Amino acid sequence: MSSSSSPPEPSLQPLVDAMLASYRGDARAHHINKRYLPSRDEAIKIVQLLLQLVYPGYFGRQDLSDDDVGYHVGVLLSTLREKLEQQIELCLCYRGEEHGKPDVPKCRNEGRAIARRFLERLPAMRALLLEDVQAAYDGDPAALNFDEVILAYPGLLAVTVYRIAHELHQLAVPMMPRIMTEWAHTKTGADIHPGAQIGRAFFLDHATGAVIGETTVIGDRVKLYQGVTLGALSIARDARGRVIRGTKRHPTVEDDVTVYANATVLGGKTTLGRGSVVGGGVFLTHDVPKGGRVALKTTEIEVDRGSAAMDPADLDL
Amino acid sequence: MSSSSSPPEPSLQPLVDAMLASYRGDARAHHINKRYLPSRDEAIKIVQLLLQLVYPGYFGRQDLSDDDVGYHVGVLLSTLREKLEQQIELCLCYRGEEHGKPDVPKCRNEGRAIARRFLERLPAMRALLLEDVQAAYDGDPAALNFDEVILAYPGLLAVTVYRIAHELHQLAVPMMPRIMTEWAHTKTGADIHPGAQIGRAFFLDHATGAVIGETTVIGDRVKLYQGVTLGALSIARDARGRVIRGTKRHPTVEDDVTVYANATVLGGKTTLGRGSVVGGGVFLTHDVPKGGRVALKTTEIEVDRGSAAMDPADLDL
Amino acid sequence: MSSSSSPPEPSLQPLVDAMLASYRGDARAHHINKRYLPSRDEAIKIVQLLLQLVYPGYFGRQDLSDDDVGYHVGVLLSTLREKLEQQIELCLCYRGEEHGKPDVPKCRNEGRAIARRFLERLPAMRALLLEDVQAAYDGDPAALNFDEVILAYPGLLAVTVYRIAHELHQLAVPMMPRIMTEWAHTKTGADIHPGAQIGRAFFLDHATGAVIGETTVIGDRVKLYQGVTLGALSIARDARGRVIRGTKRHPTVEDDVTVYANATVLGGKTTLGRGSVVGGGVFLTHDVPKGGRVALKTTEIEVDRGSAAMDPADLDL
Repeated sequence: MSSSSSPPEPSLQPLVDAMLASYRGDARAHHINKRYLPSRDEAIKIVQLLLQLVYPGYFGRQDLSDDDVGYHVGVLLSTLREKLEQQIELCLCYRGEEHGKPDVPKCRNEGRAIARRFLERLPAMRALLLEDVQAAYDGDPAALNFDEVILAYPGLLAVTVYRIAHELHQLAVPMMPRIMTEWAHTKTGADIHPGAQIGRAFFLDHATGAVIGETTVIGDRVKLYQGVTLGALSIARDARGRVIRGTKRHPTVEDDVTVYANATVLGGKTTLGRGSVVGGGVFLTHDVPKGGRVALKTTEIEVDRGSAAMDPADLDL
Repeated sequence: MSSSSSPPEPSLQPLVDAMLASYRGDARAHHINKRYLPSRDEAIKIVQLLLQLVYPGYFGRQDLSDDDVGYHVGVLLSTLREKLEQQIELCLCYRGEEHGKPDVPKCRNEGRAIARRFLERLPAMRALLLEDVQAAYDGDPAALNFDEVILAYPGLLAVTVYRIAHELHQLAVPMMPRIMTEWAHTKTGADIHPGAQIGRAFFLDHATGAVIGETTVIGDRVKLYQGVTLGALSIARDARGRVIRGTKRHPTVEDDVTVYANATVLGGKTTLGRGSVVGGGVFLTHDVPKGGRVALKTTEIEVDRGSAAMDPADLDL
Repeated sequence: MSSSSSPPEPSLQPLVDAMLASYRGDARAHHINKRYLPSRDEAIKIVQLLLQLVYPGYFGRQDLSDDDVGYHVGVLLSTLREKLEQQIELCLCYRGEEHGKPDVPKCRNEGRAIARRFLERLPAMRALLLEDVQAAYDGDPAALNFDEVILAYPGLLAVTVYRIAHELHQLAVPMMPRIMTEWAHTKTGADIHPGAQIGRAFFLDHATGAVIGETTVIGDRVKLYQGVTLGALSIARDARGRVIRGTKRHPTVEDDVTVYANATVLGGKTTLGRGSVVGGGVFLTHDVPKGGRVALKTTEIEVDRGSAAMDPADLDL
């Protein structure tokens, strides 16, 4: 595929100029002449360090013993603190730059303070995650032991990254939490917004296609299956037609609720009452009372009595 | 785990021979004695260069300024042109080889011409993508700014890769467009065929599980949620039982339509009329008129009045 | 972002101590003082070598000819055997360590024997996969040739990894099969348990969100679409409230069945009879007879007769 004998290529300059004109002509969707932007790569590295810390011996080094685990944790925490401080500083400067010129020393000091507070919460966060691991094991007869849950359950990965991102979101770190949960989405298929509030012992089985919106509130011991959406009903707009942001738009799910595969529950005022069960494929925009059960109406069954050679693909469903 | 003291391993030769016999015995599913095959790795690199070009400052270098953005774009375009020319030449030779012996100089010339035409369309494609970014921001109250949409919205990534692949599909480049959209599928969960026609300001929220088939036609300002399928109804076969390829098999979706999560719309004659709304979980094989609304029948709610200690997992749904 | 002039960082030692206390205080979710754990990275490398072997010329080297394919296969098999032996030994030692101290020489001998048996099954497994490739081509009018199916069909990737993992599962290798199918899940969105039994010529179109549970039994020529769940109905518990593991909890799907997008079929006694068809979005917990068709009740259509300027997002679905 050498092109040694080909005629010379036409100049790229007109196309370069056209792209530059495209950037200059519209302020949207480019990030030029700005200094600060959270780094996707670093956000993912932070998540990976945290996975090694909360589940020691599974990710990264697998040969830890009492003799060396202290040094290992020390090195991890030291690296993690440095990255967290840098990236949180960057995220704060990024927000500052949106409104003018960021106060860099202030961003640095705040970044260090927020990183410290986040790290102090790690043991409590790990305690919460142990309950999630237990809930997955208890909730799935196919799970053979905790190791399998930690190494091979996408729901646990999605929830772990959510709990990390939620802490950072609570500490008012901009953007980085969303980058983290979107990374988890690419790995698991579950899209959990860092702003959602999720109680203890949460189990999200199989995970693919689950969506948990920003203002969702979930109680304890809740179990969701793949494809469940906890979403917004419709979009409120102000008098000028612009969407209104920041209101409670997503459901409340009380303790001990189970929602089966592909059910869609929408609306900020919609509440699934304590202990209720929502069947697969249900589309819900109203409350379910405490202990209530909701299911699709029984589907009609038609039996074909025709040719045995019938090709199911020819059926007109 | 050294096996220094273990007995010698049995020869692998019988197994090598069995695998070679497997290849020789069946022409399917091997690519031996052929010279041309599109490269998955190069197709992905091309997509990544294009992401840097259409969203400058977000992917790859994040510190661009007016002083250097021209050089940066020049280098990107130069690398991109070389890769595009090589890979399109390869794709054309690949198609030629399917029918005998490819005319390599012709493939090279055509590859260069197609690469040039594709690059010339870049500014127009970027203008289209800006409308998609705007539609995502306008359509999701959780979106805080355009940066977040570009860095963390899987739907935008899926649509961006689709628009790239669609241009190459329009220019009759074989295979590479499908490899590109399948890469986007692994990253986002959305499977958009490069042959689909999608209008301006398209928003695919959350993205996971969405499927948009090859002959789908979508108008402007359409909004789809996760898990929506625009698919084929059943498979037409010719008199010899072989599937018929190339007919319109997927729906038409007119301007300003919204389809909520996990709805399935099938059939080449099925049209969702302008401004119609399809509710979550709906299964549709017939038209919806202009402005129509379709929803699942209200689900029945049963309230359990029994023991408060009831375990929802024991309910027989 | 240098912090050269910043005050010294507080010591990390209290946090290190807190994390160590978290590990010591709860035996769950850490892997410390244990020597054996299957390696996720090596499991994935084994899958990738197997992909090169069953689909030669597509993954890894693409320029194979009759002259060198024998050497290529020899090198692949030699590398593969070494990795398989090491990893299966590790998996067996891992299981041994769960119950005390593993018998390492026994694990090594068994690992070698199992690796040999697995490799001997490769040609038969490849024959099965050729039927899956054919089924995908036959079942999808958008498929242009076998190359496209192998390079760009997520369903084929998911099924290929499942068939590899299922063989290892049949040979009683612990954990590694689950790690393999979970890797496929991150790439395709399909979650197929290695324990499921799947017949010949299986086609899983688009793949995203499909879930096939551990005790599912699927016949020949079955076609599933994206988002289909073959899952468990509810969780049986013993007198002490612990989930009962190992019973048949997932459906039986007989020959020639088609299940359309996002249908959910649950229960170990639920059987989809030969040639039956299940429509999109259906939620099923009872049998479908031979040749039966099941579909959601027709959805109600309401046509809005109001203002033409209506914004579909304002509709209260």
